[in-house]
Amino acid sequence: MKILLANPNITEAVTDVMAAEARRSASPDVEITAATAQFGAQFIETRVEAAIASHALLDILAAEADGYDAAIVSAFGDPGLAAAKEMLDIPVVGLSEAALHTAYTLGRRIVIICLTPRHRDWYGESAEAAGLRDRIVNLRVLPVAVRNISTVVEDLADPLFEECKRAVEEDRAEVVILGGGPTAGLARKISDQVPVP
Amino acid sequence: MKILLANPNITEAVTDVMAAEARRSASPDVEITAATAQFGAQFIETRVEAAIASHALLDILAAEADGYDAAIVSAFGDPGLAAAKEMLDIPVVGLSEAALHTAYTLGRRIVIICLTPRHRDWYGESAEAAGLRDRIVNLRVLPVAVRNISTVVEDLADPLFEECKRAVEEDRAEVVILGGGPTAGLARKISDQVPVP
Amino acid sequence: MKILLANPNITEAVTDVMAAEARRSASPDVEITAATAQFGAQFIETRVEAAIASHALLDILAAEADGYDAAIVSAFGDPGLAAAKEMLDIPVVGLSEAALHTAYTLGRRIVIICLTPRHRDWYGESAEAAGLRDRIVNLRVLPVAVRNISTVVEDLADPLFEECKRAVEEDRAEVVILGGGPTAGLARKISDQVPVP
Amino acid sequence: MKILLANPNITEAVTDVMAAEARRSASPDVEITAATAQFGAQFIETRVEAAIASHALLDILAAEADGYDAAIVSAFGDPGLAAAKEMLDIPVVGLSEAALHTAYTLGRRIVIICLTPRHRDWYGESAEAAGLRDRIVNLRVLPVAVRNISTVVEDLADPLFEECKRAVEEDRAEVVILGGGPTAGLARKISDQVPVP
Amino acid sequence: MKILLANPNITEAVTDVMAAEARRSASPDVEITAATAQFGAQFIETRVEAAIASHALLDILAAEADGYDAAIVSAFGDPGLAAAKEMLDIPVVGLSEAALHTAYTLGRRIVIICLTPRHRDWYGESAEAAGLRDRIVNLRVLPVAVRNISTVVEDLADPLFEECKRAVEEDRAEVVILGGGPTAGLARKISDQVPVP
Amino acid sequence: MKILLANPNITEAVTDVMAAEARRSASPDVEITAATAQFGAQFIETRVEAAIASHALLDILAAEADGYDAAIVSAFGDPGLAAAKEMLDIPVVGLSEAALHTAYTLGRRIVIICLTPRHRDWYGESAEAAGLRDRIVNLRVLPVAVRNISTVVEDLADPLFEECKRAVEEDRAEVVILGGGPTAGLARKISDQVPVP
Repeated sequence: MKILLANPNITEAVTDVMAAEARRSASPDVEITAATAQFGAQFIETRVEAAIASHALLDILAAEADGYDAAIVSAFGDPGLAAAKEMLDIPVVGLSEAALHTAYTLGRRIVIICLTPRHRDWYGESAEAAGLRDRIVNLRVLPVAVRNISTVVEDLADPLFEECKRAVEEDRAEVVILGGGPTAGLARKISDQVPVP
Repeated sequence: MKILLANPNITEAVTDVMAAEARRSASPDVEITAATAQFGAQFIETRVEAAIASHALLDILAAEADGYDAAIVSAFGDPGLAAAKEMLDIPVVGLSEAALHTAYTLGRRIVIICLTPRHRDWYGESAEAAGLRDRIVNLRVLPVAVRNISTVVEDLADPLFEECKRAVEEDRAEVVILGGGPTAGLARKISDQVPVP
Repeated sequence: MKILLANPNITEAVTDVMAAEARRSASPDVEITAATAQFGAQFIETRVEAAIASHALLDILAAEADGYDAAIVSAFGDPGLAAAKEMLDIPVVGLSEAALHTAYTLGRRIVIICLTPRHRDWYGESAEAAGLRDRIVNLRVLPVAVRNISTVVEDLADPLFEECKRAVEEDRAEVVILGGGPTAGLARKISDQVPVP
Repeated sequence: MKILLANPNITEAVTDVMAAEARRSASPDVEITAATAQFGAQFIETRVEAAIASHALLDILAAEADGYDAAIVSAFGDPGLAAAKEMLDIPVVGLSEAALHTAYTLGRRIVIICLTPRHRDWYGESAEAAGLRDRIVNLRVLPVAVRNISTVVEDLADPLFEECKRAVEEDRAEVVILGGGPTAGLARKISDQVPVP
Repeated sequence: MKILLANPNITEAVTDVMAAEARRSASPDVEITAATAQFGAQFIETRVEAAIASHALLDILAAEADGYDAAIVSAFGDPGLAAAKEMLDIPVVGLSEAALHTAYTLGRRIVIICLTPRHRDWYGESAEAAGLRDRIVNLRVLPVAVRNISTVVEDLADPLFEECKRAVEEDRAEVVILGGGPTAGLARKISDQVPVP
Repeated sequence: MKILLANPNITEAVTDVMAAEARRSASPDVEITAATAQFGAQFIETRVEAAIASHALLDILAAEADGYDAAIVSAFGDPGLAAAKEMLDIPVVGLSEAALHTAYTLGRRIVIICLTPRHRDWYGESAEAAGLRDRIVNLRVLPVAVRNISTVVEDLADPLFEECKRAVEEDRAEVVILGGGPTAGLARKISDQVPVP
């Protein structure tokens, strides 16, 4: 089975982190190829950047998707996802959408941790577009600034972990989602320490 | 007061029809300038076309909006509207959104007439994005094909009028919206004959 | 174009303030005539007062609306609006309804500032009746008492301004509505100073 | 226990039918007194009539409710109910509201039979105001005209019964409500013959 | 009229308290018989206990309901209620459901006081199943532990009363519901002292 | 990875069909063990049967789940799923829930084909409990009776296929779900012939 992982932002370092994490959790018979947007934003934060990223994503898929069994829109907020599903005959899954579907099967009170304040509204809108808004009890924003999106996991592990604990204590979260492609891999590392019921 | 009417599809003839109708209903002290997308679709029907049109719209606004008091996204379905509002400091209004707000003040049972089957889902999603889905009791599709989007008003006046009457009789519509920029001007001509209560 | 501005409470001084503000923002070719309820409350705060005001409004419209092109129900909370729309063939618009439709086109997070605690529930119900409740993220109540409804703009400009700032900071408001007819004109004066994004 | 049954329309014959039916189903220790509106409509069908009836109802309650343990707003559609609850310290229950609460405990698919087309929208709005709209799967309208509201039970028993059967067969109704005060007593007579599951 | 009160937990002392309170508020011509579950939990707190209690309830009703005019599922959270309604031809009413319907007729802002943290989610789900979730503005949890469910009314009257006052002051509650069968009788005793508007 | 497939009805033949189909689509490193309820119904159709099956499911899981990495509630309608998730520390997934999450990623208009009329309401309720009701545009019932649940795939392939086609043509379905464990394997066989867009 061949999967195309399409990153709608232009930062190749983030594509690499996400592809590595995807390969780690995939079955051995799944082959994952990654592609990065040719124009647009380094890090998608605003609706304007998401609109341009949607176009860039469709360009990637039009050029590369031939011969794949499935495609992943590899950015939180799922820019361009609905159009991509319409354009291709193979299944196309978005990162936010997949996280939320998994979260729904795990618990009723879901909290998303956002890297920046602007993500809060966008992730909320993306959940609404996926028909999965009802169980999100809070969207929390990391209280420290992101300086380098390629090293988020190294730089921000502690504050992200603290925010997860607050989600459980203050929001009675049953599931916590780390939002943002740059956090790929962190959930695996800290999940044992977050006391989700 | 200066208003920029931005058509996110590339068909100048439709831009002209819409601008003429806009000038007809504006106050004398309002000056309306029209601009047409530089890339994308001739007629926006699908989510893919809407995604590309959103990018094209942002390009128009980035290049032209300076010095205007307001902007109009002049295509039904409002492609790129949320991003445009975020990008500009002046008010930006979409055609679907404006039609729905007016419809809400006029009655509780709203029906939209769509030119093509693909518009049905897209206009519904656009209404949902505007937070104005609740009162739409039906989205009807014209039972004849659109051959030339520049002459819709001349070619399709009769079937559009018939569909309006069906909306009133079968859906108990209190307000009927003719969807699609190419129908500009028709509502003015036929509104006296549609027996909306 | 002739518009009838009908105030469903019996305080003529408030009618005068609202009519003056309406004339200021209307086009030069719009002629606005004002009328005041003949019975009911000086200031509509409760559901009982709103029910009586609805009847008083219908009496004004039955007596005066002949020959007008449109009518305005000039009280926040829109008492009697649905019945007025049903009774007349001309468009009838309510103050709350119009404020909310405008707010919807301006942003996604709307906050209403209420003059008294009783207004909070009533304005919320009125928004629900208009099908426009989803985007109201808070209804705030002014923390000081209203002593004279005819001089609200002079007496309460400061606390109203403070509450607007709190709406932006604490509720992340993108749009702030000053509720209550007696505040007419204040929004125009303070809007430059409220840092809505 | 003393209950005041307040009919917000001005037709005393309907007050008498409703009071008789209420006394029949009340416990022996409940004393029911009836009162009729002093102004307004003979039969409440429109939003205008409902608005005037709301005022008339408040007048009845202000004049008569002293000394009672509870009050009933004895008209389908519950005109003035929210204001009456606010005005009085005793419980006030509306006919639609009570019918819907009982229906909710009996089944999940509720159908209301309306005497006239105008009732359809009004009863729907009244259910929405009561927070009880979700389970109403249809509002059906009697296909024959009501000529005399004082003799509805005698004149229209057959078509009402037919409509009930259609509600069960076509709408898969689990509960059927006969809307309209004038039908008082009919439900008792025909309930054995309607094959609700 | 004969009513079967079925307690789906196995604690007979709680059955007795609830039956006594039910008899106190029933008309003299109503005869109430109580039955207790033969297997399951002493005090239903979790979804697992509720699932087992549902089976136990159906067993009670299958064995005992013959000859009764109505049945009461006498536990907050209404375990097994939907199945019981399907199984029997007589009306079956649940404690939560009945409390919520009564609350809806009394006010728009409802608060439920829960005896334990686990009840909060379960009561919320039960309200949702009854289609009565919209008006619940808060579910509060008693800040002290329940040690003996048979003597809740004696042991916890003071903290329950304090929580009721907080519901009115902090949540602007218009109606307060004491959740949990073991509180039977307390509402009657303290209702005069809680300043609900 | 070891998965426990728990069938909450007592028909071993259906357990075998479902386990075989599960093994066929699982990765080679997944080991699937099946278990069948010890008491309850042969085929779960009613809320009563679902309530008893919930208890039976919890009994299976309490006895068998030790040492597994995940569990599947292998009956459409997901009886006992919420309680099972609460009871176990491993992920527990239900058949309806899983089908709906997959359907959500594939399209916006979902239709479920039910084997019997009673399933229609139950599957609808189960979707609501999963927070996944919004996109189900229809629940269709097979127009022929099910005689033997162990041989549904052989006996009813044609009418199920016809119903799928009707879902696409009449309901504009973008995704079709075959409801009911006994249809396991059929979707794989007919999916090529159903013209879902």
